[in-house]
Amino acid sequence: MGLRKDKDTDRKRGQLTRRQVIGAGVTGGVGLALGAGGGYALGQDDSGSDTAADTNLVAFHGVHQAGIVTPAQDRLHFAAFDLTTHSQADVRDLLRTWSLAAERMCAGLPAGPDNDSPQAPPDDTGEAAGLSAAHLTITIGLGPSLFTKDGQDRFGLASRQPAALAPLPALPGDQLDPNLSDGDLCVQACANDPQVAFHAVRNLTRMALGVAVMRWSQLGFGRTSTTSSAQSTPRNLMGFRDGTNNIVAEDTAALEKSVWVGAGDGPAWMTNGSYVVTRRIRMLIEAWDRDILSDQENTFGRRKASGAPLTGVSEHDTVNLAAKGADGLPVIPPRAHIRLAAPATNDGVRILRRGYSFTDGMDNELGQLDAGLFFIAFQRDPRTQFVPIQRRLGQNDALNEYIKHTGSAVFAVPPGTRRGGWVGETLFS
Amino acid sequence: MGLRKDKDTDRKRGQLTRRQVIGAGVTGGVGLALGAGGGYALGQDDSGSDTAADTNLVAFHGVHQAGIVTPAQDRLHFAAFDLTTHSQADVRDLLRTWSLAAERMCAGLPAGPDNDSPQAPPDDTGEAAGLSAAHLTITIGLGPSLFTKDGQDRFGLASRQPAALAPLPALPGDQLDPNLSDGDLCVQACANDPQVAFHAVRNLTRMALGVAVMRWSQLGFGRTSTTSSAQSTPRNLMGFRDGTNNIVAEDTAALEKSVWVGAGDGPAWMTNGSYVVTRRIRMLIEAWDRDILSDQENTFGRRKASGAPLTGVSEHDTVNLAAKGADGLPVIPPRAHIRLAAPATNDGVRILRRGYSFTDGMDNELGQLDAGLFFIAFQRDPRTQFVPIQRRLGQNDALNEYIKHTGSAVFAVPPGTRRGGWVGETLFS
Repeated sequence: MGLRKDKDTDRKRGQLTRRQVIGAGVTGGVGLALGAGGGYALGQDDSGSDTAADTNLVAFHGVHQAGIVTPAQDRLHFAAFDLTTHSQADVRDLLRTWSLAAERMCAGLPAGPDNDSPQAPPDDTGEAAGLSAAHLTITIGLGPSLFTKDGQDRFGLASRQPAALAPLPALPGDQLDPNLSDGDLCVQACANDPQVAFHAVRNLTRMALGVAVMRWSQLGFGRTSTTSSAQSTPRNLMGFRDGTNNIVAEDTAALEKSVWVGAGDGPAWMTNGSYVVTRRIRMLIEAWDRDILSDQENTFGRRKASGAPLTGVSEHDTVNLAAKGADGLPVIPPRAHIRLAAPATNDGVRILRRGYSFTDGMDNELGQLDAGLFFIAFQRDPRTQFVPIQRRLGQNDALNEYIKHTGSAVFAVPPGTRRGGWVGETLFS
Repeated sequence: MGLRKDKDTDRKRGQLTRRQVIGAGVTGGVGLALGAGGGYALGQDDSGSDTAADTNLVAFHGVHQAGIVTPAQDRLHFAAFDLTTHSQADVRDLLRTWSLAAERMCAGLPAGPDNDSPQAPPDDTGEAAGLSAAHLTITIGLGPSLFTKDGQDRFGLASRQPAALAPLPALPGDQLDPNLSDGDLCVQACANDPQVAFHAVRNLTRMALGVAVMRWSQLGFGRTSTTSSAQSTPRNLMGFRDGTNNIVAEDTAALEKSVWVGAGDGPAWMTNGSYVVTRRIRMLIEAWDRDILSDQENTFGRRKASGAPLTGVSEHDTVNLAAKGADGLPVIPPRAHIRLAAPATNDGVRILRRGYSFTDGMDNELGQLDAGLFFIAFQRDPRTQFVPIQRRLGQNDALNEYIKHTGSAVFAVPPGTRRGGWVGETLFS
């Protein structure tokens, strides 16, 4: 196939399907280019996580990691890992290996170059061959326990732990399952094709053999947030529009203020990074489904059909928290979800939500559907953003009757990397 | 919105999104037409499960149920239910209710008409509002235990149980979990949007309250079969193309011979129906991923990249089971999966496969991914089709080293119904 390593050819390569590429592993230029020197050039610029020339591709490289302000894809596969090694070098190697493989997969290539040597296991597991990259993004995070665990400095990194990367405190209403919480590392794979997202997580998991094991994972089948003003607001499994007033990629001022870690915020290695909080929020949908419409609407503070706040008629109408009805009572009830979550109620604090709906089949104990919202939120500092917001919600939110938080995790999301670099490099340099 | 109940308007209605319709429940014609007399006309003919004028719609009505030879959609939500009632009338009412709701949802409408009465729970849970019907099909099945369970004639239906609807015998290699097996009823929801499939199962589950409870469910994120000659062959999670020589909708002779129940096959109520066998096949993908390419290819009997049989160069080349190599040995090994599954090895017996890839997160016991293939196969008589094929595979298939069957079920799939009718009506009349 003889691909040359220049910009134009790279663009063209992005348009090859994996089916065309998978048979070309050893003999084609793709494998050779990588084998020869790494630093595989994707032909994208370094100025951010822009989409590449092929509209199915999102660049892996950029100032920030992709998968944060990238327009939210439809499907999610999130995984947390526990390190089984005691070696800092192993951790570095794993992050480098993951980054190289992520770069390849986000470019629509197999996870590794050699897929046709008869006497070797293929580098790539193959189930995404022939599929487009489907806007795949792979976002890598580092948990608090990578730095300190049970008071131990496991990898000589304790002095570099950001203060913002503290384990989350106990929060009101927590009903957390440790098997669905925490982790030393995380991978968020988002794509418009779930098979592509699964393929990414599976191949990264495989590369971690002997160094890290999966601790928990979560599939999400429907996005519940917009991260671009061009996206329509989806509905969560309670049937309500979710994410109407989210921070969007176009609002660079809000991103600087509330999402990206600034130069003076803590250790320099996190500048242009972010922090992600995940919460597995089980919805008690059987109870919710028996609730009458007006109660449902008062619980959220919005109309179900239109998504409009109770003080408006259209989805994006102003949420008027001060408005009172003819009876003198607030139109948006005191415990309504949008009142308690609103920036106005939280000293202007905002977070970038990027959640997904999930179902994990049956809860055999209760005989009910195990379904809900896998909440993902990016922010500059969880201590001053997610934690106080959730403390307020956990104490007072009318929604609490219908949800429980069953999983929880926080990770530092290092900045993006330039071509030839890898995610986490700033931590170790 | 004033929709009139005539063919042209019905076609138009199909193109409305649920978002437009959900707010019109009580006041619009949709709700009134249904409330007045049922028998909601979709403007489709009765000659089969043809797609309707709106290309996102698949007709619920037809000679056969939809979701069997319908071109396989990308996503699956399958659910099995246990009846908690002792009343035959309850079972009839549930099947009628399910059919009416299925008809609505397949037409892109809310599950029920009333969604804006403030003092009532909405008929529809809302999460699919605004989404297209995404080729939704809902296929309803009846398990052996509906007729006889522990020797009891539970609902006065024992005399109508088809001989073909026998519980599956123990098969070689079975490692079945009863919590993932069997059931009195089943619903197979397929769609190109997983949120639409989830929505269908959730709303049908809700309507069963007090009569049936979900026993198990399975999400599938990627189809592994073609049921139309126009579809390309997808890959399963072993990275191989799956379903190359499946029966397709265009092969009406094969469907008559191997899929549809004929007039003389058993009780008349099953004529034009079919039988579905589901098997939850866990793949031991960590072991598989460590296997070398030539072993993987010999296990299947096909090339991984191209999907070609080892006796050919292209996917659809002839599987030549007699061919021998220079060493005098069969090119397709004696225990290769395609040899043992081939009609030539099974007295010409074929089945229509319609499986999906799944992952259910972690197997905490083994610390491995719980992922594999949710096998679904339709046929005229499982006793002479699935059972002997699986007996041969379970004894000899080289794949057995990498898979285990963890769930199993069989259901009678009654014929389709005309407008105004309901699935299962033939059983009770």
